[in-house]
Amino acid sequence: MGSESTLSAQKRPSGTLPTTGATANGGARGRAASLLPRGRQIQKTFNNIKITILCGFVTILVLRGTIGLGNLVSSDAEAENQHLVEETNRILAEIRSDKDPTDPDDQPEQFLDLNATFSLGPRISTWDEDRKVWLQKNPQFPNYVNGKPRILLVTGSPPNPCDNAIGDHYLLKSIKNKIDYCRIHGIEIVYNMAHLDKEMAGYWAKLPLIRRLMLSHPEVEWIWWMDSDALFTDMVFEIPSFKYKDYNMVIHGYPDLLFDQKSWIALNTGSFLFRNCQWSLDLLDVWAPMGPKGPIREETGKILTANLKGRPAFEADDQSALIYLLISQKDKWMNKVFVENSFYLHGFWEGLVDRYEEMIEKYHPGLGDERWPFVTHFVGCKPCGSYGDYPVERCLKSMERAFNFADNQVLNLYGFRHRGLVSPNIKRIRNETGTPLVNVDQFDIRHAVHQSGSKS
Amino acid sequence: MGSESTLSAQKRPSGTLPTTGATANGGARGRAASLLPRGRQIQKTFNNIKITILCGFVTILVLRGTIGLGNLVSSDAEAENQHLVEETNRILAEIRSDKDPTDPDDQPEQFLDLNATFSLGPRISTWDEDRKVWLQKNPQFPNYVNGKPRILLVTGSPPNPCDNAIGDHYLLKSIKNKIDYCRIHGIEIVYNMAHLDKEMAGYWAKLPLIRRLMLSHPEVEWIWWMDSDALFTDMVFEIPSFKYKDYNMVIHGYPDLLFDQKSWIALNTGSFLFRNCQWSLDLLDVWAPMGPKGPIREETGKILTANLKGRPAFEADDQSALIYLLISQKDKWMNKVFVENSFYLHGFWEGLVDRYEEMIEKYHPGLGDERWPFVTHFVGCKPCGSYGDYPVERCLKSMERAFNFADNQVLNLYGFRHRGLVSPNIKRIRNETGTPLVNVDQFDIRHAVHQSGSKS
Repeated sequence: MGSESTLSAQKRPSGTLPTTGATANGGARGRAASLLPRGRQIQKTFNNIKITILCGFVTILVLRGTIGLGNLVSSDAEAENQHLVEETNRILAEIRSDKDPTDPDDQPEQFLDLNATFSLGPRISTWDEDRKVWLQKNPQFPNYVNGKPRILLVTGSPPNPCDNAIGDHYLLKSIKNKIDYCRIHGIEIVYNMAHLDKEMAGYWAKLPLIRRLMLSHPEVEWIWWMDSDALFTDMVFEIPSFKYKDYNMVIHGYPDLLFDQKSWIALNTGSFLFRNCQWSLDLLDVWAPMGPKGPIREETGKILTANLKGRPAFEADDQSALIYLLISQKDKWMNKVFVENSFYLHGFWEGLVDRYEEMIEKYHPGLGDERWPFVTHFVGCKPCGSYGDYPVERCLKSMERAFNFADNQVLNLYGFRHRGLVSPNIKRIRNETGTPLVNVDQFDIRHAVHQSGSKS
Repeated sequence: MGSESTLSAQKRPSGTLPTTGATANGGARGRAASLLPRGRQIQKTFNNIKITILCGFVTILVLRGTIGLGNLVSSDAEAENQHLVEETNRILAEIRSDKDPTDPDDQPEQFLDLNATFSLGPRISTWDEDRKVWLQKNPQFPNYVNGKPRILLVTGSPPNPCDNAIGDHYLLKSIKNKIDYCRIHGIEIVYNMAHLDKEMAGYWAKLPLIRRLMLSHPEVEWIWWMDSDALFTDMVFEIPSFKYKDYNMVIHGYPDLLFDQKSWIALNTGSFLFRNCQWSLDLLDVWAPMGPKGPIREETGKILTANLKGRPAFEADDQSALIYLLISQKDKWMNKVFVENSFYLHGFWEGLVDRYEEMIEKYHPGLGDERWPFVTHFVGCKPCGSYGDYPVERCLKSMERAFNFADNQVLNLYGFRHRGLVSPNIKRIRNETGTPLVNVDQFDIRHAVHQSGSKS
């Protein structure tokens, strides 16, 4: 009865009086009305009109809420786009859920227990000698080219689309940024999108990856791990590899934070270099066992939180584990670890992104330090995930700025720059010319680097 | 009054009677009621209850529509994620809408009229000689390295996020695929995300880009344009550049379709090579004027549709324009254009993607042709936009398959492959070993290519 009444309420034009229950009682009501004085009739009519208006108004609200009257004027394109997005998500979920009964990734997880010993692979102990012999036999794959060591930049992201759609767009811009830097400086890139070792998921995934790449690319002298949320912002600066000839690891950090304060952020594993040698394999062998998912990672997390200053309580991460390792076994490792802070091999974004205009005004690319940071690293922004540590707006705008700040240095050769640090649009800064080679000599970064060595 | 009434209707518990107008008329109504017989009173009460139930029911519907009562039971995470996505979109729209009064991109569009002459830049007529002199002066930037011409792969995508979120994920996978191929074969990449010339937007954007890169990179011998929706699927195959020493352009197509049938798909500009020379600049100079947005592009579109077999009616695209140009000025250009179809410099995806398993079973990488296609090109899928020419599911699954088919060839060196052609997960195909260099010699594609020349 209620719904019938609702339906009649919706259908009735607002000018007529509500007649709920009219069929049963219309006659009675009519008789009652004729018994009332005219004034009372008018008042009754007025009351009925008010009720009608009330119900009519409420009906309209309901219609808006259920069938979206407001949407009838929006474009078909919007509705179609929304449909497309939903369909795409459904298809992706289906693709991603393709279950393979032989696929251990589709089995319930089995964690290593605390007593188990984890290993990245069979122990290799003669890597330096083996590699040296191989390099001699393969002169077409030298580990030094034009006096510079061969560097392999390694980065990556998970194989599935980001939780937040915009994350994939920033991963794309991030890899474009790296492609530009590496093209200018003759560095090769590996972009990893595969989980090589289920137990070493998350941050720890870089360890088995680095080991595998070292052993598969003997021609590479340095493996340079760089997070996907780190951008190059000095396109001219080059790693001063001559500084590290007696070292096997180069990592950004502060010795006092490391040894005096034992801070959990004393070093940053978002951007570091690892020489392709036995020492590095050995370090990986003692670093990795702290990482396997499950009880090992959890228990290690507690130890790390107890021992490192400022560390929140959460499972072990590779950075804290490395810090703890280097503190605990200082004598064994530190003579080959260069803790670098004369330039921003890793530059925490918060103190840098608002100063780009000032940098443009006062300084120039090639400095790599706080005046013109080599790398701006968006720690905590997590555009690929759902939960960053900073407001989304601040992160996105800052990443746009960093990207464009860097892109301007690349576009300079081509005679363009971005209209503003937040604008995707570019404008000419040099007209097309009939003598383009003059500009090549003047503006190609590689020519500058080649002529003057490192521009620091 | 209407809204007040609505508010009171929403707030009133459903057990009480509606009292719209009660304050003005309550007294009168009360007096009217006492004048009615008991039966009439009961009826009146019954009517009021029905009205109350009606309005209460309608109220509940309104509440569901406006505050989403139904959503109160969904997870907080979902709501938060939805909020995050909406917030992100809002921020992005804000960033993208940053208007700059001096920015011509933000002005109403001014199209070139039909009489105007469009030019990519000042005429250059001595490029071959100028470049030769430059190369002699800059021996550190040779155009041939180890006997192979220096190739620059050029690709790109628009500066803004894709209309369809999944588009950015496939752009990311596509560039990873290209990074892998180019690392293996010593090819440099430029990933363009900027509009160099407003008038040459859309497909035509590659023309000013190619010209600018030719003139800025005299050390590059070949510019290889490749669409973002084209994937390498033969990681071993190399462009047989020796075949093209007397040519300046290499493009996939069929001469009979071109000259006999004048088909609008006789050639494919989704993947082609352009030598860095005067001839190429000259071709660009006659090709480009068919492209400026507005009346020129529209009118040219009509001419192309009228003259090319099978061409639908739409504005001029660069591929049809090139075909028309080469047909009309055959004698001027064709002696330097190599129409290649002995391998899939461009391989239309539809006939290829379902045969990957058969290929794996019967053939091997390095063939580059219909047995193991060099490039699989997803023409018409348009994952970045809203409207593809094929069902979304078919496109996405096919792109996953092509990506994994290619990725398996890369992962082979590292001892892994995908669990299935649709799976993002990988599995070991070789155990870790204490003698990794044996596998390097056997499985590194570059060693195979280096030893045997081209593996076709």
